[in-house]
Amino acid sequence: MLPGVGVFGTGSTARVLVPMLKAEGFEVHALWGRSEEEACSLAKELSIPFHTSRSDDVLLHQDVDLVCIYIPPSMTRQIAVKALGIGKNVVSEKAATAVDSFQMVNAARYYPQLLSIMGNTLRFLPTFAAMRQLLMEGYVGEVQVCDVRVYGPSLLDQSYGWTCEDLMGGGGLHTVGSAIIDLLSYLTGTRAQRVHGLLRTFVQQNDTIRGIRRVTSDDFCFFQMLMGPCTGGVCCTVTLNFNMPGSFLHEVMVVGSTGRLVARGTELYGQRNGSKREELLLGDGSWAGPDVKDIPLPHLLGLGAMVKALRQSFQEHEERRLWARGPVAMAPTFEDGLYVQTVVEAVKRSSFSGEWECVEIMNKEPDPNHNICEAQKRNKN
Amino acid sequence: MLPGVGVFGTGSTARVLVPMLKAEGFEVHALWGRSEEEACSLAKELSIPFHTSRSDDVLLHQDVDLVCIYIPPSMTRQIAVKALGIGKNVVSEKAATAVDSFQMVNAARYYPQLLSIMGNTLRFLPTFAAMRQLLMEGYVGEVQVCDVRVYGPSLLDQSYGWTCEDLMGGGGLHTVGSAIIDLLSYLTGTRAQRVHGLLRTFVQQNDTIRGIRRVTSDDFCFFQMLMGPCTGGVCCTVTLNFNMPGSFLHEVMVVGSTGRLVARGTELYGQRNGSKREELLLGDGSWAGPDVKDIPLPHLLGLGAMVKALRQSFQEHEERRLWARGPVAMAPTFEDGLYVQTVVEAVKRSSFSGEWECVEIMNKEPDPNHNICEAQKRNKN
Repeated sequence: MLPGVGVFGTGSTARVLVPMLKAEGFEVHALWGRSEEEACSLAKELSIPFHTSRSDDVLLHQDVDLVCIYIPPSMTRQIAVKALGIGKNVVSEKAATAVDSFQMVNAARYYPQLLSIMGNTLRFLPTFAAMRQLLMEGYVGEVQVCDVRVYGPSLLDQSYGWTCEDLMGGGGLHTVGSAIIDLLSYLTGTRAQRVHGLLRTFVQQNDTIRGIRRVTSDDFCFFQMLMGPCTGGVCCTVTLNFNMPGSFLHEVMVVGSTGRLVARGTELYGQRNGSKREELLLGDGSWAGPDVKDIPLPHLLGLGAMVKALRQSFQEHEERRLWARGPVAMAPTFEDGLYVQTVVEAVKRSSFSGEWECVEIMNKEPDPNHNICEAQKRNKN
Repeated sequence: MLPGVGVFGTGSTARVLVPMLKAEGFEVHALWGRSEEEACSLAKELSIPFHTSRSDDVLLHQDVDLVCIYIPPSMTRQIAVKALGIGKNVVSEKAATAVDSFQMVNAARYYPQLLSIMGNTLRFLPTFAAMRQLLMEGYVGEVQVCDVRVYGPSLLDQSYGWTCEDLMGGGGLHTVGSAIIDLLSYLTGTRAQRVHGLLRTFVQQNDTIRGIRRVTSDDFCFFQMLMGPCTGGVCCTVTLNFNMPGSFLHEVMVVGSTGRLVARGTELYGQRNGSKREELLLGDGSWAGPDVKDIPLPHLLGLGAMVKALRQSFQEHEERRLWARGPVAMAPTFEDGLYVQTVVEAVKRSSFSGEWECVEIMNKEPDPNHNICEAQKRNKN
């Protein structure tokens, strides 16, 4: 039996997620928005019976068994951790920092019987599921290089907000790079050991963001990841450019010793070393729904595939809070979320230091007084 | 009046260059090859009246006024410097090291009345000439990012030779990267200040190179260049991958504040920020000649355009050694060659150190006894 759902967020993802949930048979009982007006307006539009701007009203709602969190990164940790503590299953977008991600991991470890997956949805896209399968079957031989490019228009909101702020989780690296970092570890089955990167904010002001305000989040980011063992590992290069209005390119290429695979948007192509041309391995999973301006097709279709997997996971059980691992086994866990966040922060460190930075996953929470002590020390000097 | 030409080299470039020269009205009087047999065989095939394996025989040939040098990088400097010393005009491929390039610069400075240009030919390609023109006219606004990708099959020769050896000038960075480094400085009108790179040799042995022999030259290379002023400069990213048999991709993209330009192969596309789609700005300069396996179309057409420019340069004068600067003004000078070689070596240093490396152009020759002294010092310790 399918669980009742509560949705956090009134942005473009929440707006497409709710109809997807309903189409798969979920009932969406409650919607949370940052302001009463936003919540009310979207709840009306999407015919959701209850709306609120107080998070507890959704978390404690008796018909809500599954909580979907699609809100600004800086608020995510608080809701996700609390939801698990109350005993709800959680699908969550990424947090803003590694410390936040670590706290989410701790909560997920504490309640292993609850579903807790990241809402990074590229893994669910059939294109990438097929790509991973072919990689495991040896289509490209030994993987040498992954080369990813995502180009598109600005990620900034119309008005000044978290998308403009590096520290709030804005920027191409955090928003889009995260999904790519997760995808590459899923595809190659390894994790980044060392990273090097360069971030830039070419557009610091625009028509709506001006005066004393400046954008601090990156609109261009280039990074490399060395994955797996120190020698003979995989080199990944990722280029993200969001100064290209009017175009959208999402290309993931994996080159190996005997061939290569390329996902262009949602289509998958392959070429073995012997052959003269590329073959189309998986056609366009065409999107019957309305065109959604802010969400690229791979993410949109990935979201749809994730909702399907959620339905399969829950419908296997009579009790509406119970779920089966099989259908969501490919989903990124909160541990994956911590890894991704750690890589993001290492790339930012590298852009600052100019050096290769190691990816070291946090295994205990940093002393919360650490920064205060540091500040005190500095004051003394 | 057109000068008589002597050609050094029997490789694939020399093989297409000679017919191009003849088609423009040049007479090719002499051909040099490393062995008598190679020289004889190609001279016969291309109907060149004189062939030799002794370089002086070409350099001192009385009908040779223009020397074209397309030989392995480690031999280039010696021939180029001597040719200028004898008073011949020179078109030369790149040398193997910055020291060699520096000596070529010295020779060129010493004989400013002689033509001395690098045989890197992408600048002459109409695609890139048009791209530069549009950039200067402000088509993309302020240039932010250049993104270049060249993918193709292995650059290794059939048998073991200089193409396998990093120190001999083999590898993707030296062979193809050089032309890209030159092109980007031509397009942006600035030079790299700092570079960061990573080189890999994924294929160290193959069917013909085995036993104790190993390839040391790179078959995968990506590097970044920060061009122009320290703040607000242009970020260039270049990815070269020669583990992709059966495909060839040559893409140069320049993204600016108000639009972008992309050269795919020999076609030029553009898109301004306001518009919904790309426009084709320059169609395929179709190649009527035979298909040449080893030379990518952009280089082939660039070579043809360079030969045309040489003809225009020389035909303006009655005396067959005199030439006009105008038609070859866009050509890379030996100074440009030194810059390119300096960047190549900085990228290699960076791949070794893992750090950003400064591009510092040599302005005096390093003490030739320096290495000996160092070795002596080390022996003493």
